[in-house]
Amino acid sequence: MNMSQFNFWMPVHVHFGVGITKNMVNEIKGDHVLIVCDPFLYKCGTAQGIGNGLTGKDVYYFSEIEPNPSTTSVDKCAEYARANKITTVIGVGGGSSMDVSKVVSCLITSPGSIYDYYAGGKQVFKKRTVKLILIPTTAGTGSEVTNVGVFTNVKAGIKMPFVCGEFWADCAVIDPEMTYTLPPAVTASTGMDAFCHAIEAYWNRESLPLCDYLAIGAMKLILENIQTAYAEPNNTAARGAMIVASLTAGVAFSQTRTTGIHALSFPLTTEFGASHGLACAITLPAFTRISTEMASEKMQELAQILGFRDVNGLADGLEKLMVSLNMPVRLNQLGVKQEDLPHITRVGLGAAAQMQLTPATVNEAAIQALLESIL
Amino acid sequence: MNMSQFNFWMPVHVHFGVGITKNMVNEIKGDHVLIVCDPFLYKCGTAQGIGNGLTGKDVYYFSEIEPNPSTTSVDKCAEYARANKITTVIGVGGGSSMDVSKVVSCLITSPGSIYDYYAGGKQVFKKRTVKLILIPTTAGTGSEVTNVGVFTNVKAGIKMPFVCGEFWADCAVIDPEMTYTLPPAVTASTGMDAFCHAIEAYWNRESLPLCDYLAIGAMKLILENIQTAYAEPNNTAARGAMIVASLTAGVAFSQTRTTGIHALSFPLTTEFGASHGLACAITLPAFTRISTEMASEKMQELAQILGFRDVNGLADGLEKLMVSLNMPVRLNQLGVKQEDLPHITRVGLGAAAQMQLTPATVNEAAIQALLESIL
Repeated sequence: MNMSQFNFWMPVHVHFGVGITKNMVNEIKGDHVLIVCDPFLYKCGTAQGIGNGLTGKDVYYFSEIEPNPSTTSVDKCAEYARANKITTVIGVGGGSSMDVSKVVSCLITSPGSIYDYYAGGKQVFKKRTVKLILIPTTAGTGSEVTNVGVFTNVKAGIKMPFVCGEFWADCAVIDPEMTYTLPPAVTASTGMDAFCHAIEAYWNRESLPLCDYLAIGAMKLILENIQTAYAEPNNTAARGAMIVASLTAGVAFSQTRTTGIHALSFPLTTEFGASHGLACAITLPAFTRISTEMASEKMQELAQILGFRDVNGLADGLEKLMVSLNMPVRLNQLGVKQEDLPHITRVGLGAAAQMQLTPATVNEAAIQALLESIL
Repeated sequence: MNMSQFNFWMPVHVHFGVGITKNMVNEIKGDHVLIVCDPFLYKCGTAQGIGNGLTGKDVYYFSEIEPNPSTTSVDKCAEYARANKITTVIGVGGGSSMDVSKVVSCLITSPGSIYDYYAGGKQVFKKRTVKLILIPTTAGTGSEVTNVGVFTNVKAGIKMPFVCGEFWADCAVIDPEMTYTLPPAVTASTGMDAFCHAIEAYWNRESLPLCDYLAIGAMKLILENIQTAYAEPNNTAARGAMIVASLTAGVAFSQTRTTGIHALSFPLTTEFGASHGLACAITLPAFTRISTEMASEKMQELAQILGFRDVNGLADGLEKLMVSLNMPVRLNQLGVKQEDLPHITRVGLGAAAQMQLTPATVNEAAIQALLESIL
């Protein structure tokens, strides 16, 4: 725990309640609302369920958000928002729609393309005047309470995070009902993504006490509820607990950033097609084992709080949990071969901002060895 | 834990660091800074230590803040601030100076007296434009991260809380060095006040998961460090832990409010002269025992997390801890007599906003019985 220096700032209004997304009209600024979502949330009516509650407002939909959203989608959505003089953007979805909404809400009043502000762009967003509301539909990304968006940079062909002070939402509306229809595989992978956020905040080299406490709470809640939410998709108590855990983990890692797990997830997603949650969870046990190098005492304490003998016991337990959720635990299950490891290692190390926050040595040899141990 | 509905909003920028109060010039808005403190912090040079770091600014001091600050002091301080065209108010101290600073920072741009806005006053503060910075010098009140001020209402002769959306500070600057010279008795009473904040957030009828996790973290940190901070005032690790615990407990109860402990502390302070911390802590074990009425399961869980067999064991442990810190544990040690109990009960029940958040029956008979049990 970093007891010498830390900052904490969480400016997002968080509203939690079962069914509260049905009646959000009092949260809206202006009259032109854009709901950003993926094609599935539009087809199944979830987005319209939110839009229909906005009595008296002009509601527009942009429903073309893909997983690992591209910079191209961001620019297209921004054009649509500008054309319709949007005053409130509501991002509904997993991380993708929420992340796009963050940038789009800024691009409405700042001219140009996402590339003018990101990935070497030289512009800085003006103060955001459009209201930004984020509604998670998975219990996983925590994106509703972070100032980070992750995009597939089409020019560079890689996933890259975009951090910006204007990306803090005005409010996050957390409604467990949004997750009741999640398929079990998504419940599992997004739930383990949330677990990664929590443990990465906790073992982070920039960890801070408030976030440690939140992270511990989130991890306990996930371990107590993920198997129930997976096996009984209609268990509302487990669904509520999982989305609260994701929120809590989100607040924790919003202050610390993530670590090696997320750094390595980028190539596993971009190049091997793994969902973000799977791409993160697959290295979770291995990173747990090496976290003792620099965070031995606090990881031992965590293991005991979570009901394990020691850190290796925790790592074993997490792997068993993943197996019970029918998640891959070996890289070869994602199609990764021995000869891919040097490249994955290099790309992962390229996400240096995250990688360097890992509480262990993270050079080429160490990361290659970690990947080999779970091949 | 309230898993059906909750809100969380903590807009204060928190900066923590050893020695950071010495160089805060970059935090200042405008050129006219008012430092609000009590006579002791002025005489011993603590306030000037902060002011001297504000190179290039005009620094004014108002050092007349008394314990349980009166509405009269608030109005006097506001007059002084208006006369000097203050642009940034820095509240330095225990709860008193910070609480006064909250109101004064609003009164600079909103005309009239505190009574126009408080205790039946009909006015509402304009949006605060003066910057408000809070620096705690005890590890106890948590006032740096709440939107509450507690004042002795001179007209009514009672302590009354004042809650206002404009009272959230722009930033809280947490510097353990501020606490290194606290006398042991103040370390003990303010530390137990922080413990009360945490446990009152946790057992609160409006509790919420994020605050539960913060409260658990704060309680553990206090139990692990308060005796060291008391016995070894120069133990910087224990001092750092205690002020972090107070901050963390402050964030927790800022969302939930307090409960019966704080409601009963008002008459014990106003009429029996007990410090705020003593007035709170003295009923802590008794309220812990009755908290099982409505929060049985989560209190049992808390007792175990904190290393006790059950809730009665926790209550006994807290009482023993207070004895080890040379704190009173019986009301008669404060000069309270049997015949005073009906009046204390009535005044405590009058603070209904807090009292009703207690997880137990809180009618006259129940509160009188609770007080009798610790007479």
